[in-house]
Amino acid sequence: MCELLGMSASVPTDICFSFAGLMRRGGATGPHRDGWGIAFYEGKGYRAFHDSGASANSEIAQFIQGYSIKSNTVICHIRKANRGRICLENTHPFARELWGQTWSFAHNGQLKSIKKWPLEYYFPVGTSDSEYAFCWLLDQLRQEFPTPPKNQKKLWAFVEVQVRQLASLGIFNILMSDSRSLYTYCSHKLAWLTRQAPFGDAQLLDADMTVDFAQETQPDDVVTVIATQPLTSNEQWHPMSKGQFTVFQKGARSYETQK
Amino acid sequence: MCELLGMSASVPTDICFSFAGLMRRGGATGPHRDGWGIAFYEGKGYRAFHDSGASANSEIAQFIQGYSIKSNTVICHIRKANRGRICLENTHPFARELWGQTWSFAHNGQLKSIKKWPLEYYFPVGTSDSEYAFCWLLDQLRQEFPTPPKNQKKLWAFVEVQVRQLASLGIFNILMSDSRSLYTYCSHKLAWLTRQAPFGDAQLLDADMTVDFAQETQPDDVVTVIATQPLTSNEQWHPMSKGQFTVFQKGARSYETQK
Repeated sequence: MCELLGMSASVPTDICFSFAGLMRRGGATGPHRDGWGIAFYEGKGYRAFHDSGASANSEIAQFIQGYSIKSNTVICHIRKANRGRICLENTHPFARELWGQTWSFAHNGQLKSIKKWPLEYYFPVGTSDSEYAFCWLLDQLRQEFPTPPKNQKKLWAFVEVQVRQLASLGIFNILMSDSRSLYTYCSHKLAWLTRQAPFGDAQLLDADMTVDFAQETQPDDVVTVIATQPLTSNEQWHPMSKGQFTVFQKGARSYETQK
Repeated sequence: MCELLGMSASVPTDICFSFAGLMRRGGATGPHRDGWGIAFYEGKGYRAFHDSGASANSEIAQFIQGYSIKSNTVICHIRKANRGRICLENTHPFARELWGQTWSFAHNGQLKSIKKWPLEYYFPVGTSDSEYAFCWLLDQLRQEFPTPPKNQKKLWAFVEVQVRQLASLGIFNILMSDSRSLYTYCSHKLAWLTRQAPFGDAQLLDADMTVDFAQETQPDDVVTVIATQPLTSNEQWHPMSKGQFTVFQKGARSYETQK
């Protein structure tokens, strides 16, 4: 299995602290040593860092931990390979353009027989079931909406139906973004936490590291972090329920349904 | 204007030396301070690093210079903005998936009225004429070849026709790759150099830095570097002619035509 980390924030925010915790699980405090990746949105702009080695020993991961990239939306993944060999093209998050927006996707789980489903526009570069599922999902979106829908709720509801269909094939915990929204689906394990005023201290579970968010933030900031497992020991994480689909925007839960 | 740097190599090779020279031109020895990016292919895998600041002062650029990524094909770009504001989404190289391959593209020049040309499948995320031209080019490829052509020469010849059509709109020096080939077009300024046995010393023009390639290579290696302007002072660079279209594979010139 793999682990996921996401962020949705009201103002561009760096994720160095949470990232430092997750990276330890990629070969040090956890077994997810088969590659890692992190994607940052800066407005419509998108950049991602990938490495097919263990994050706990990765020089790039080390660099990113010390380099503050301010972003509204972040998706991060550490991999424990099950389907698809260990190589760069099987390393999440995956990205594609639709409607002039960069969509990105990371997945924890596995889907049985997904590769029998037909693809039309988007094709995987690697061999993972995750990238295949992402291509299929974008295909459905493009077929349903040849141009971007003006009504966001219509879009979210359509994504939800596709995601639930994919989830019927197996385990499907995901983070996905189109640069405006962060889509999450919990098939069996995902938790979230919102940091807002009054801000306090946070202590990482995987490293001897504490941060005082009162020193790092403005009073109006709203920052939501989503992770497979809680990353801090002294904050209130909310486990998502099985079958919960939630869309975050600017740190807030904008759309949520249960199975 | 901007500057380009590309590499096509018979074996995975790092580009740290050439990259160090080019990065100096992004705000130190040259005026190209409006962002930079570099894309590496590792087999079918693709990863890119982008920054919208000046490369000469960029911490990421500094990190990449010291971090050896071995790649068969590299595309790098430093930007002096003319069309499209300075931001991450206007930073080259741009990337899209076609036929399950990641295509990437970087451009030096400007194209008049390109945005009047219709797009069908691929849409720009940013506002540069370069990304628009890349989307148009991929649209033509997808329409002509719904599935990847088996005959590579047919593909190269088709790309050539599209590239010449784009070049009729202005200045169009480009580097493009589909992970197998490196496509180059010289509209007015591009030069190449092949390093192979017997290897010797190379001295950068933009930094006090020398490398002895005999120490860094194997006897059978063939490494071709393509750049807007020569990067070294003591090697034989070949200027391309105006209207020259060349496809490199594994360091060799596999296809070449003049206007």
